[in-house]
Amino acid sequence: MATLYGLGLGPGDPELLTLKALNVLKRVPVVAYPALESGDSFARRIAAPHLTGNQVEIAIRTPMIPGRYPANDVYDRYGVEIATHLDAGRDVAVLCQGDPFFYGSFMYIFQRFTDTHTVEVVPGVSSLGACAAAAGRPLASRNQVLTIVPATLSEDDLAQRLKGTDSVAIVKIGRHLEKVRRVLESLGLAGVARYVERATLEDERVLPLERVSEAPYFSMILVTREP
Amino acid sequence: MATLYGLGLGPGDPELLTLKALNVLKRVPVVAYPALESGDSFARRIAAPHLTGNQVEIAIRTPMIPGRYPANDVYDRYGVEIATHLDAGRDVAVLCQGDPFFYGSFMYIFQRFTDTHTVEVVPGVSSLGACAAAAGRPLASRNQVLTIVPATLSEDDLAQRLKGTDSVAIVKIGRHLEKVRRVLESLGLAGVARYVERATLEDERVLPLERVSEAPYFSMILVTREP
Repeated sequence: MATLYGLGLGPGDPELLTLKALNVLKRVPVVAYPALESGDSFARRIAAPHLTGNQVEIAIRTPMIPGRYPANDVYDRYGVEIATHLDAGRDVAVLCQGDPFFYGSFMYIFQRFTDTHTVEVVPGVSSLGACAAAAGRPLASRNQVLTIVPATLSEDDLAQRLKGTDSVAIVKIGRHLEKVRRVLESLGLAGVARYVERATLEDERVLPLERVSEAPYFSMILVTREP
Repeated sequence: MATLYGLGLGPGDPELLTLKALNVLKRVPVVAYPALESGDSFARRIAAPHLTGNQVEIAIRTPMIPGRYPANDVYDRYGVEIATHLDAGRDVAVLCQGDPFFYGSFMYIFQRFTDTHTVEVVPGVSSLGACAAAAGRPLASRNQVLTIVPATLSEDDLAQRLKGTDSVAIVKIGRHLEKVRRVLESLGLAGVARYVERATLEDERVLPLERVSEAPYFSMILVTREP
């Protein structure tokens, strides 16, 4: 029976692929990857140096509407296309930037196959470890609690989540930058916050929060304590 | 100037090394790794298939006393040994299981060199992604908050941290298993808790919490929500 792989490719630097991901990537006849409605796929770009050139490619194009998530019927449709390959005996790898289960869209595919097909998830280096490495900030140690909070939460929710935790990683900054800044300032944490953008890519940036005026979606703010 | 690497080796399966970690591993003349006071080093075991056989090896032996952390003088001593190599122009890689900055002991070395030497942290696949993959449980998605909580906290602290979060990973279970079980039962979460032991190793085990009677240090309990 064919296998559906959720293939973690790491945060962006193609050198941060695992040996296992590389082996699967070279072996599967079909690759699928999330892509913008028109244009680029970050996941495919990470994998590009390792693709064979003879693979069937499925671009999973989902509309990106701020604050909304892709409708089920989009994933239903791609699910049928992927199932056609699996049922014909062809392994399919879904390329996932970072780790497939850390805020990835792979889970929408995963849910549709876990009861009916063989699914293997290959973990990858997540943006969490990559941003911490870029910033030179250990995430957590000893008895410390580490909380990962999406910037999409409301201002009150954000403040509530940031209170009383040891280390925080705020993900999905993008257009929520000013809201996050206000919350961190109100808690007296803005001064120690470290901003990381496009970790491990050539245009990676690491800055104190106060010097950031604009943030892409692939950015993170770390507020950590000394161990 | 020589470089000190914090080298993330992933959770245990040597196939989960990154290409970057492999390249550094083959190139450095000196490797250091945490080890038990007498005997084995898990980090060295992961790296073993890739060591050249001609490298200087430094076993960082620290006493493991439950509830206590190694004294500073232990790390001071190894710091001097590592600095001798760096100052003589020899790169040193400190082998780290998982990710160097995710509850790793590397940070005690890191702190001692970050102001005086060139330090590069190579992120690795963490136990977090590995355990989620093994359990088939997405960690977090969309607006969900993910909290990582060491089982070493007090019963009250644990309960407080687990309340009102979406997804939780409880790390460092070991001798704290029964305490964690009581807390999860009191919150009505024991039934959905998934236990993972030695993820990605040959003797990996994934069980519902109710079937677990004993836990090693390298184990994790995941309580996640549907996306």
